[in-house]
Amino acid sequence: MKQLSEVRAFGGRQVRYSHASRSCNCEMTFSVFLPPAAGTSECPAVYWLSGLTCDDQNFATKSGAQRVAAELGLILVMPDTSPRGDDVPDDVEGDWDFGLGAGFYVNATRSPWNRHYQMYDYVVEELPELVEAELPVSRTQRAVSGHSMGGHGALVVALKNPDRYAAVSAFAPIVAPSEVPWGQKAFTNYLGKDAAAWAEYDACRLIEKTSACPPMLIDQGDADQFLEVQLQTWRLESLLEQIALPIQVRQQPGYDHSYYFIATFIEEHLRFLAERLP
Amino acid sequence: MKQLSEVRAFGGRQVRYSHASRSCNCEMTFSVFLPPAAGTSECPAVYWLSGLTCDDQNFATKSGAQRVAAELGLILVMPDTSPRGDDVPDDVEGDWDFGLGAGFYVNATRSPWNRHYQMYDYVVEELPELVEAELPVSRTQRAVSGHSMGGHGALVVALKNPDRYAAVSAFAPIVAPSEVPWGQKAFTNYLGKDAAAWAEYDACRLIEKTSACPPMLIDQGDADQFLEVQLQTWRLESLLEQIALPIQVRQQPGYDHSYYFIATFIEEHLRFLAERLP
Repeated sequence: MKQLSEVRAFGGRQVRYSHASRSCNCEMTFSVFLPPAAGTSECPAVYWLSGLTCDDQNFATKSGAQRVAAELGLILVMPDTSPRGDDVPDDVEGDWDFGLGAGFYVNATRSPWNRHYQMYDYVVEELPELVEAELPVSRTQRAVSGHSMGGHGALVVALKNPDRYAAVSAFAPIVAPSEVPWGQKAFTNYLGKDAAAWAEYDACRLIEKTSACPPMLIDQGDADQFLEVQLQTWRLESLLEQIALPIQVRQQPGYDHSYYFIATFIEEHLRFLAERLP
Repeated sequence: MKQLSEVRAFGGRQVRYSHASRSCNCEMTFSVFLPPAAGTSECPAVYWLSGLTCDDQNFATKSGAQRVAAELGLILVMPDTSPRGDDVPDDVEGDWDFGLGAGFYVNATRSPWNRHYQMYDYVVEELPELVEAELPVSRTQRAVSGHSMGGHGALVVALKNPDRYAAVSAFAPIVAPSEVPWGQKAFTNYLGKDAAAWAEYDACRLIEKTSACPPMLIDQGDADQFLEVQLQTWRLESLLEQIALPIQVRQQPGYDHSYYFIATFIEEHLRFLAERLP
């Protein structure tokens, strides 16, 4: 693990690292915020999964989350959104909604993507193991949050691993990737046409099968430009009318898909997560 | 005044405008945050002057200031840092420390800069007139703050117009531009070799001549990579040992020159300004 930079923020440390990833078979970069409390003891970690086109720094620079994390004693762990490097294949059309910056937090099974695009294993297993070994990160207190594609990621990793995450939050998540263009493009390429494989990474399909999940808070802006075609939050909301799970979905009037939306509500999300940590 | 975009943030409105500027003789862009209170009444304005290479959006996206401005009922007015456009001359060497993104908040007197680079008049006169006419901005309650080159700008516009600004703050300001490379390059180009002209835009020289100024809060990180060569805060601090003025300079241990530093202390600065508005 190599430290690329360190900046003081809110009495803590905003640090960027890179390391050779066995899951993604390339050098991966991630950012961490260590609150003042991490100077003297282990702290719980909130994993933040970013959306399409982001890397490990968008949330760090735009969300203002460090202020609240410093107060609550939370470590923020911010992975990249895909493998990167000269070897790593990108969308052949060069579009921003697939390939680099668009790993969708799945383990790809199809060539050429399967050689590097193993973001599910990276986020759920490898990165926690690394930061829990190298930084004062608690091994027992994890939460996860994310935005858009990363909101999808947060819901999926928590639904598949309810014992690993004490609580979950999401901003404007893709709730049913199998049903929308962003998800269909990514899943077709990464997973092929196997419907069962798609269902393993689709929050709505996972919710249909589960009887328990960690507490979840979801915020969705009703002026979000991607709501109708890509996010379709109502699919999740109508499932929750039939299935009793601790998932709260809030509509936020007038908010769009931007980081201003995240910045506005991140304090409530971090407090929600912190209160539910063991 | 043309609205370019609007996003909801912290219950208020983050808006971007452009307009034909008579001072700068080009189309100028600026950003404004309107807190919820501005929906029903006039609010005081804090003018934010950004640093080298910034435009009207860096502070808006990275500082987190809107959260506090929403609570305190402050309008944030964020001008660009220079004139822009195909006609506007840039540094012949294309460096980032002069020309576009580097107006230094002066009225240039030398050709070719004098045709557009009139940022002092723009910030002190034209922009306030515009927003006070078109938006619910108070005509009697103004404050100013800024970072680096914009910290220099904030100090200078307030020292030259103590009746216009109720309070001032600065993050890592250039306090003595006449004595440091960034300022010397800019002043030589914009103002020529006239020492008297330079003194009109040099905070330390203005402080030597003044007997009263608005209350000022200055924060400077002691790990700031530009402190020794460009900022030289100690020049201001040693003046204040001889001249009694309401200027507080704080050293912040471990902080650098980045927006993480601004984000950490912007809440204290906005509260400082708000408490001193009439």
